[in-house]
Amino acid sequence: MHQLSERILAGDPRAVARALRLVDDHSGDWLTVLKDVFPSTGRAYVVGITGNPGAGKSTLTDRLIEVYRKAGRKVGVVCVDPSSPYSGGAILGDRIRMSRHALDPGVFIRSVATRGHLGGLSRSARDMVRVLDASGSDVVLVETVGVGQDELEITRTAHSTLVVMAPGLGDEIQAIKAGLLETADVFCVNKADRDGADATIRDLELMIALGTESVLAASRARGHVVHSEAIDPTAGEAAGPSRLAWRPPIKRAVATRGEGITEVVDALAQHREWLETTPEGRARRRARLAEELREALREALIDEATQSLRPALEAAVARVEERVEDPYTATESLVRAFRER
Amino acid sequence: MHQLSERILAGDPRAVARALRLVDDHSGDWLTVLKDVFPSTGRAYVVGITGNPGAGKSTLTDRLIEVYRKAGRKVGVVCVDPSSPYSGGAILGDRIRMSRHALDPGVFIRSVATRGHLGGLSRSARDMVRVLDASGSDVVLVETVGVGQDELEITRTAHSTLVVMAPGLGDEIQAIKAGLLETADVFCVNKADRDGADATIRDLELMIALGTESVLAASRARGHVVHSEAIDPTAGEAAGPSRLAWRPPIKRAVATRGEGITEVVDALAQHREWLETTPEGRARRRARLAEELREALREALIDEATQSLRPALEAAVARVEERVEDPYTATESLVRAFRER
Repeated sequence: MHQLSERILAGDPRAVARALRLVDDHSGDWLTVLKDVFPSTGRAYVVGITGNPGAGKSTLTDRLIEVYRKAGRKVGVVCVDPSSPYSGGAILGDRIRMSRHALDPGVFIRSVATRGHLGGLSRSARDMVRVLDASGSDVVLVETVGVGQDELEITRTAHSTLVVMAPGLGDEIQAIKAGLLETADVFCVNKADRDGADATIRDLELMIALGTESVLAASRARGHVVHSEAIDPTAGEAAGPSRLAWRPPIKRAVATRGEGITEVVDALAQHREWLETTPEGRARRRARLAEELREALREALIDEATQSLRPALEAAVARVEERVEDPYTATESLVRAFRER
Repeated sequence: MHQLSERILAGDPRAVARALRLVDDHSGDWLTVLKDVFPSTGRAYVVGITGNPGAGKSTLTDRLIEVYRKAGRKVGVVCVDPSSPYSGGAILGDRIRMSRHALDPGVFIRSVATRGHLGGLSRSARDMVRVLDASGSDVVLVETVGVGQDELEITRTAHSTLVVMAPGLGDEIQAIKAGLLETADVFCVNKADRDGADATIRDLELMIALGTESVLAASRARGHVVHSEAIDPTAGEAAGPSRLAWRPPIKRAVATRGEGITEVVDALAQHREWLETTPEGRARRRARLAEELREALREALIDEATQSLRPALEAAVARVEERVEDPYTATESLVRAFRER
């Protein structure tokens, strides 16, 4: 076993920091380390935290750390900003808000803003979670900045997804994309002391009750072209059975005052138990693992094909540029060439 | 040649409509048709139009159609909403605003909101542009709803990218992500009769003058973790050389009154000429073609691997689930198995 891996398993924070950097950069012995530590993973409980900017995600995350620490749990935090390194203001804010935990050896916080290739960020997040898991974290919180497609993919690396909302941020419910409704395991209406909190909760309850089918129907009625492929098919696969058995609870909180936080933690614990003890929960974990392998295979194939087919790829580009060959036929030939070597 | 292909090349609008549907759904003989018509593509000038919601993109698009039609050009329009089928209100609005062109046989407008797989939307948009191109469109406008990562990828299917802004939408410049600055070939400050238009233009000029490097430096100075991979490497490849030679002009317009539109069209024409007559321009076109082939290859490989490795993939998931094998080693074995069949 790699020396770095041994130090990670022993919980050495400097080794963890170094491994997270390697994993995020895909540099050095990152892959060896991940392989080494994998058998020691699967112990941590991983929570994805997402929601619109301004909902108070990082304050809530800070409070969750506090509650888990008081219960004696070691906590890892990964803050992800997929949109761009330039919208990193939120991350900077997170760091300031969470800095009171910086000296606590039982807390490890790390930001990531890399956008390498398609799917690169959710893969990085997943691998970083594994390092934290192997190093002895009992809970790993993965906080994302926004609610876009990237964020949805990142929350899928978690066991449970907490969607944070706040009243008065404009049209809350419109902001919940269909994919988010599918992904949410627990809703937290933060800033619940504000006007409009009751209305936000009512809207959410209605939306959960109506379910996705009605949303689709309403969208069609408004004249939109809704293809069935528009819904992430893997999301359907994973969420479909769980919808039957798990109904996401809605919790009120005022994170700035620490109110309602233990209730959120309890709701998450119930979801974790559901995942581990019901056939639907186990099926979901398995579906997500299958998804991960498929994504990893996709990346590995294109990496290897790009390397081994470099001259053929360049020749194909030239032929397509001169319109001697079409790009669709060229792609088919390249796949054949890759398999025959 | 497929009968549908022949009708497309003859400019039959019903055949075009049918082909666009097939291409978007990947159904029927979509691939045969694309292969058939490809040699007849490359004649249309493709313009990507992007910018924040509220900037007036669709009104501007409507005016651009008008100017091109007056010059006797056939125009195709593809409206793309990558975020979700539910935020399709903007598309509905587009349709209403552009409906005055609906009866003009020289204009073909089509919306697309499909999100199949990663990269699926930009691929669909590119293939739809090709059908419109082959059917005799002189200009194809690809309008996207927002300014996210998906939109950036879609604009890369165009020859020229027009970024539309408007004063008074909040912090304009912050909203311009670095990727967008790299992608913009022409800026249009719409609603230029409003307060704040001069300030928006000044900010834009400054931002273009400073260039990306300074933005990066400033971001680092604010304490953000900026990895070099955070910048899309292909964007750099494509935009790098062009930055030396092409400086995006900034045009004022009031699209609702039709003011400044011909100036935008002229700026686009200059950019088109730059693309076709300079080595930097040709290098950019080639780089984008190479990118397209690589993306198509990625998708084709995973599709074929998923089919031919189905039992092996399922067995790997089971082994990883039991932690008998790690997912990284499992992926390597799957790639080997794929190449050896």
